[in-house]
Amino acid sequence: MSVAPPAAWSLAIHGGAGGMTRANLSAEADAAARAALAAALDAGAAVLSAGGSAVDAVEAAVGSLEDAPEFNAGRGAVFTADGTIELDAAIMDGTDRRAGAVARVTRTRHPVSLARAVLTDTPHVMLAGVGADAFALTTGLEQVAPKWFRTPERARQFAEAGTTFDRAMKYGTVGAVARDQAGHVAAATSTGGVTGKRWCRIGDSPLIGAGTYADDRAAAVSATGSGEDFIRLGVAHELCARIRLLGESVGDAARTVIAEVGAIGGAGGVIAMAPGGDATWAFNTSGMYRGSVASDTTARVAIYADEG
Amino acid sequence: MSVAPPAAWSLAIHGGAGGMTRANLSAEADAAARAALAAALDAGAAVLSAGGSAVDAVEAAVGSLEDAPEFNAGRGAVFTADGTIELDAAIMDGTDRRAGAVARVTRTRHPVSLARAVLTDTPHVMLAGVGADAFALTTGLEQVAPKWFRTPERARQFAEAGTTFDRAMKYGTVGAVARDQAGHVAAATSTGGVTGKRWCRIGDSPLIGAGTYADDRAAAVSATGSGEDFIRLGVAHELCARIRLLGESVGDAARTVIAEVGAIGGAGGVIAMAPGGDATWAFNTSGMYRGSVASDTTARVAIYADEG
Repeated sequence: MSVAPPAAWSLAIHGGAGGMTRANLSAEADAAARAALAAALDAGAAVLSAGGSAVDAVEAAVGSLEDAPEFNAGRGAVFTADGTIELDAAIMDGTDRRAGAVARVTRTRHPVSLARAVLTDTPHVMLAGVGADAFALTTGLEQVAPKWFRTPERARQFAEAGTTFDRAMKYGTVGAVARDQAGHVAAATSTGGVTGKRWCRIGDSPLIGAGTYADDRAAAVSATGSGEDFIRLGVAHELCARIRLLGESVGDAARTVIAEVGAIGGAGGVIAMAPGGDATWAFNTSGMYRGSVASDTTARVAIYADEG
Repeated sequence: MSVAPPAAWSLAIHGGAGGMTRANLSAEADAAARAALAAALDAGAAVLSAGGSAVDAVEAAVGSLEDAPEFNAGRGAVFTADGTIELDAAIMDGTDRRAGAVARVTRTRHPVSLARAVLTDTPHVMLAGVGADAFALTTGLEQVAPKWFRTPERARQFAEAGTTFDRAMKYGTVGAVARDQAGHVAAATSTGGVTGKRWCRIGDSPLIGAGTYADDRAAAVSATGSGEDFIRLGVAHELCARIRLLGESVGDAARTVIAEVGAIGGAGGVIAMAPGGDATWAFNTSGMYRGSVASDTTARVAIYADEG
């Protein structure tokens, strides 16, 4: 009598790519980031191991990272040039390529869940600004005072950086990609953008095809980095197109798109999940906060490039 | 002694795809649309024949269509659920894949020129809402009172449609794609979105890779239609990826992506320009306002499917 193997699931997350090295990240910050990544993996794994969907899992994992002040999303997001906090998020279900995104929301504790509500409850894909904040009030999602998102560390960075838009800054966007037991993939991304952003700048994170994409025929992708470059290349969609049209492996496709980002002067990284459950990451910075766990693999987290 | 042939240039434009037929479009509306399309072709052709750049040409052609009350962009844009007018536009230069986009602007006469200013004058790709309006004040571009954009016909449609978001509505987004004498391509798109849109909905037009894309290695693309479906498929980037990765012709790629839009229940069309100067359009609606002209071809305009 044969016994069916346990159904496979897989999860990968990131907390942003940037200039982190063992020399410039304190032991305290290193440990706090690793603990927050591990907690997010636990949140997503709990969904997937119970048979939940990939889209539920990436929402749970990103929601956990949004609450962690270590990362530039939700609580701990960076300040705009005006000293406010504007949050962007997107989520996409590879099953049917339905997607939801919000830009410049200011009062929803978990922007990724608001993006999910756009996907689930509206005929739209993307809502922005005051309209997205108004839509949030119809959803029952937890609303918070803007001060919820502010942390002393980000206030210090704002005071130092002022209104300079610096492409070389550290990035702290968060994201997750998952493959569930039914074989579907999903991706989600959430961010506060870049310190000192002006004129209601929208980066790649909430743009379907740039910072976030999912397609059961190809992969689920979440990106982080110099957002404008990722928009120009359509990084998340390009990675999926290379798999779908050329038959490239998810690892090859990820390395190729990050090389192309570098070729136009950009910096950052991607995580990607193949429908078979293969997770990969690629980045051209000295570090990327990241982690992965699967039905047959214990959780691991990493920060620096030399951690493989 | 050989004489070099005149350098080739080519331009195609659209004023939106929709349910127009000879039966439901009045002779007057038919003639007005054709005249406005012809004027936009003239504006773009003047740039290209004088040796101007593709990106200048698409800005000029789209600017002409924005001023035409027949189309849903600039003057003549549709009303939001709140009775306001919010305008989106994007422009992209295939030379280096630099891009600019604005969403939900309310006071700049030519939103496509504001998108161009984002490309030229900022490190960003996309600005939105009050921030984009504030940026406009730094550019010297003509600012107008919001009533400039309002026309009696759109007020009537708003009164009839109210706040219903109807995917089956006529679309009137405008766009242009061009190939200049130096062999570069560019694309631009401008829209008022859909009548009765709510919650600051952003459609595909200003999203690089969805409604607008340009890449000298592939094509320049401007899309029009049920925007959410075009975002989910990343239509403009997908069309370029098929040319670049599969070697498809621009015509085959355009037909394929529109078939895929139809397969997920969407409706609309694309215009696309190959770097060699081949222009094409594809749409799955009964009509698309469109036109083309090239260095070796006289201008032609068309509305209905049976005009070829």
